[in-house]
Amino acid sequence: MLQSREPELRERHGISFRITGIASRRLGWIADPNGLNVENVEHVERAPSPASGKSAPHSTNVHTWLKSAQADVLFEATSLNVENGQPAVDHIRAALNHGAHAITANKGPIVHAYRELRDLAVAQSKRFLFESTVMDGVPIFSLFHELPVIHLQGFHGILNSTTNVILSEMENGLTFDESLEKAQSLGIAETDATHDIDGWDAAVKTGALITVLMDVPIRLEEINREGIRGLSAEAVRAAKKEARPYKLVCRGRKTEKGITATVRPEQIPLTDPMAQIAGTSSYIYFETDIFPGLAITEENPGLYATAYGMLADFVRVVR
Amino acid sequence: MLQSREPELRERHGISFRITGIASRRLGWIADPNGLNVENVEHVERAPSPASGKSAPHSTNVHTWLKSAQADVLFEATSLNVENGQPAVDHIRAALNHGAHAITANKGPIVHAYRELRDLAVAQSKRFLFESTVMDGVPIFSLFHELPVIHLQGFHGILNSTTNVILSEMENGLTFDESLEKAQSLGIAETDATHDIDGWDAAVKTGALITVLMDVPIRLEEINREGIRGLSAEAVRAAKKEARPYKLVCRGRKTEKGITATVRPEQIPLTDPMAQIAGTSSYIYFETDIFPGLAITEENPGLYATAYGMLADFVRVVR
Repeated sequence: MLQSREPELRERHGISFRITGIASRRLGWIADPNGLNVENVEHVERAPSPASGKSAPHSTNVHTWLKSAQADVLFEATSLNVENGQPAVDHIRAALNHGAHAITANKGPIVHAYRELRDLAVAQSKRFLFESTVMDGVPIFSLFHELPVIHLQGFHGILNSTTNVILSEMENGLTFDESLEKAQSLGIAETDATHDIDGWDAAVKTGALITVLMDVPIRLEEINREGIRGLSAEAVRAAKKEARPYKLVCRGRKTEKGITATVRPEQIPLTDPMAQIAGTSSYIYFETDIFPGLAITEENPGLYATAYGMLADFVRVVR
Repeated sequence: MLQSREPELRERHGISFRITGIASRRLGWIADPNGLNVENVEHVERAPSPASGKSAPHSTNVHTWLKSAQADVLFEATSLNVENGQPAVDHIRAALNHGAHAITANKGPIVHAYRELRDLAVAQSKRFLFESTVMDGVPIFSLFHELPVIHLQGFHGILNSTTNVILSEMENGLTFDESLEKAQSLGIAETDATHDIDGWDAAVKTGALITVLMDVPIRLEEINREGIRGLSAEAVRAAKKEARPYKLVCRGRKTEKGITATVRPEQIPLTDPMAQIAGTSSYIYFETDIFPGLAITEENPGLYATAYGMLADFVRVVR
């Protein structure tokens, strides 16, 4: 996506860039401050870099890699670790300490280390952005940046695509296992979909919204969480038939006693817009003092929507 | 609203302000660079200003008034003039030329002079913001500022509250005239509601979205416009009964031949979220290359939502 939008970034936003580092489990830590040939990323470790004519040197950890790459911006996209947010937290901390902006699509660091990373970014005069963590790249967090002196009292929504696809497919007659396979074949569910099915992904998103938008850190254990594993296909179809379909609903609310938060299957009446959110679509409804109800619906996003969120964060940090 | 949020603006955003000018048809042009006593705005013309102890001097036009007030920011809130956007265009132009930021809740200047005012603002290194013009203060224009390198292909929505309240009330059994009176008693419809009923307000909003978000200036005559005057209460109730209620729908679309735009009553199937938008709620659905469907719903806003949009613009221009 960076490459396909390169002309527009240059012409409309005056932004040019060079990819000077790539790291993955398979490739290891690759860096070349003169720029890597990412057209051929599969062979990047063997290919001489286009600018220097030399082979790209390998680093052994995130610190030497950031230094070798002379990184100005880090895109962090490791997968979710619900226990402690690692290694993403270390990567982002290293980037900020190195003097680079940090952009992540990984919500683990938000629930496990938001305040530390936010304050570190401020101290380093860098940005820490994470718009892709909730509703793909839909600018939820940026929206609230555009809503000064507003107070968020509560929210509810449908934020996990895998379970929503599974519920929709079970309504259409498939078994749980067939529905899960379909979600996997669509590229939405990972091979191990436990995090989705048991509500962890939705709970981490709920925690991220509470932590950032309500400015109240919340531990995952404080979120009342129930996944969709206990729902039979028969129950799902019966609920659909009685016009009160099941959805995995995320809720957060400020109360006098503190924050209450739940993630659980709920039967939704057809008059609630959530009842219409099917497949990969998602939905969030915010209750604020100014707008009693402000809702955002994302219909059928493509798989590139998350990548777009990181690209938009890139424009935010450099403009 | 400025006054009620004053402590929070100061403490959270480091913003302090002084109201140095007020102008209205009734009061005329009042200015005092030391600050006006707006607690008592009804008598401000007779009251000595709190800081100077002298009577606030009267100006005779917007130019001398801005100068007397030593204005840094203008809040422009005259009512809509569909023909030429005046006097709002002159007010905003005068503010920018004076060296003040200009904030307006009046959509006339957007369809009649957007490019001129936008370019003048850039030339003066000032901002020209207008978030309150569409969907009250919901940050529609700011949202697209947060969506770089995205392309808007089309949109549709329900953007006029008066007609939506009238249609809802006719569904509930009232006549057209009774419904209009109800909208007026709610403070939504003006005494002369012609602009709403004949679709002018919705058309100007449609034009504003096309002009700003698609970057294509469009004249009001190019928008295919039909109001709700031709709908009988019987037709509205029959449509509701057959589960395809009438809504005044705004549409804009980029085509190979240019922009097509319509404002007209349409019967909406219940599977479309627009069918649920009742009373003062509003809705917009954007089709973009990244997000095939991105929709925003504003449920039952208070009358302060438009004022909030101007306040949020104020924070945007000074932070």
